[in-house]
Amino acid sequence: MRILAIDTVTEACSVALLDGQDILQEIEIAPKGHSTRVLQMVEDILSRSQYRLGDMDVLAVDTGPGSFTGVRIGLGVAQGLAYGANLPVIGVNSMETLAASLDSGQVFPAIDARMKQVYCGLYQSRGSSRPVERVQPVVANPGELPFEIEGAFYGIGNGWRIHGEAMGSSLDPCDATILEQSYPEAKSVARIAAFAGLESAMDPMFLEATYVRNRVVNEPSVRN
Amino acid sequence: MRILAIDTVTEACSVALLDGQDILQEIEIAPKGHSTRVLQMVEDILSRSQYRLGDMDVLAVDTGPGSFTGVRIGLGVAQGLAYGANLPVIGVNSMETLAASLDSGQVFPAIDARMKQVYCGLYQSRGSSRPVERVQPVVANPGELPFEIEGAFYGIGNGWRIHGEAMGSSLDPCDATILEQSYPEAKSVARIAAFAGLESAMDPMFLEATYVRNRVVNEPSVRN
Repeated sequence: MRILAIDTVTEACSVALLDGQDILQEIEIAPKGHSTRVLQMVEDILSRSQYRLGDMDVLAVDTGPGSFTGVRIGLGVAQGLAYGANLPVIGVNSMETLAASLDSGQVFPAIDARMKQVYCGLYQSRGSSRPVERVQPVVANPGELPFEIEGAFYGIGNGWRIHGEAMGSSLDPCDATILEQSYPEAKSVARIAAFAGLESAMDPMFLEATYVRNRVVNEPSVRN
Repeated sequence: MRILAIDTVTEACSVALLDGQDILQEIEIAPKGHSTRVLQMVEDILSRSQYRLGDMDVLAVDTGPGSFTGVRIGLGVAQGLAYGANLPVIGVNSMETLAASLDSGQVFPAIDARMKQVYCGLYQSRGSSRPVERVQPVVANPGELPFEIEGAFYGIGNGWRIHGEAMGSSLDPCDATILEQSYPEAKSVARIAAFAGLESAMDPMFLEATYVRNRVVNEPSVRN
């Protein structure tokens, strides 16, 4: 399966091309300018791979949660590309994308949500399939996490850098291994889409952002 | 010339298809949801016209100034569509788009810029060509417009509804005719693109938003 994947939901802008077992990725950390860079990166990746957009089976995109504008840019470009090239799309949330950076272990992804909040979730990663979702993406106050964690876990994402101290206050520090990786990446979006398969692909028209802020303020959405 | 045009820079979301002298448009006023609606509207318009995206000569898009997110959605979708379908793009600013709603007269377009500011410009409209730009798009305090107007003019855009009183304080009310039309529309984007012609079309990668806020705070950019 050939998948072109895009991730623009944080300061990182990345594009990846998965072709069977091979994967190419370009990534840049740029707080602004995603919308001018992302198409250039698509072109670079396609040129490196010697494929055209029409050779892809599906287009995959990180649907957030993350920066409101970043999510919108990613969805807009992905929808436009897919519609223009007559491809289906697969949307992947940013928490699972972060979790899929690891091949094993319990993963606690966290992305800064501004307003002193953090997007987070809880996953069991495994290299041979999609991460298993234990807590779906929520928005939380860093000092009052709306779920409990048993056992050792990996913390990943810029939420740990920004809110780590507050988040740590309700967790056993012995259980935590905080990783350097700060951002979700397109290569993980592509891998998740490959596991999800074409049967989960949809018409780009129906692609929606993964918003969690409103849902969670009313109801913690924990299913553990 | 066949042009598909998109405008998402205000609460109005519109898509138009210009085919020689004929023009089709769909428009909705929706403060949110542009990114889920715009592709549906593209599909509807193409279906009504019985053209496919690849039958277009160029894709045109309103590049703002306007809502930050709205501008980003429009650019993302337009860039993606154009890249995916291998079409060039023409970007048109929102002030000229509003001015092109009129076939004649001096036009003073204004769009709410939040933070108690307004985007505005000054144009001489003529039905047979692009509006002539007298003051390029600027951001201003409604009570302190950074340019003067001589003679009668038409006020158009939601800036007049929201900031009209303050804007009127520095203008002769006898000269002003304030129109009902609140939003730039894709059919005007298409018309301007048709006047601009294919020679002004570009690779979608190089399309940029029309931002004015920073430029104008430092320098009023008046050329009258």
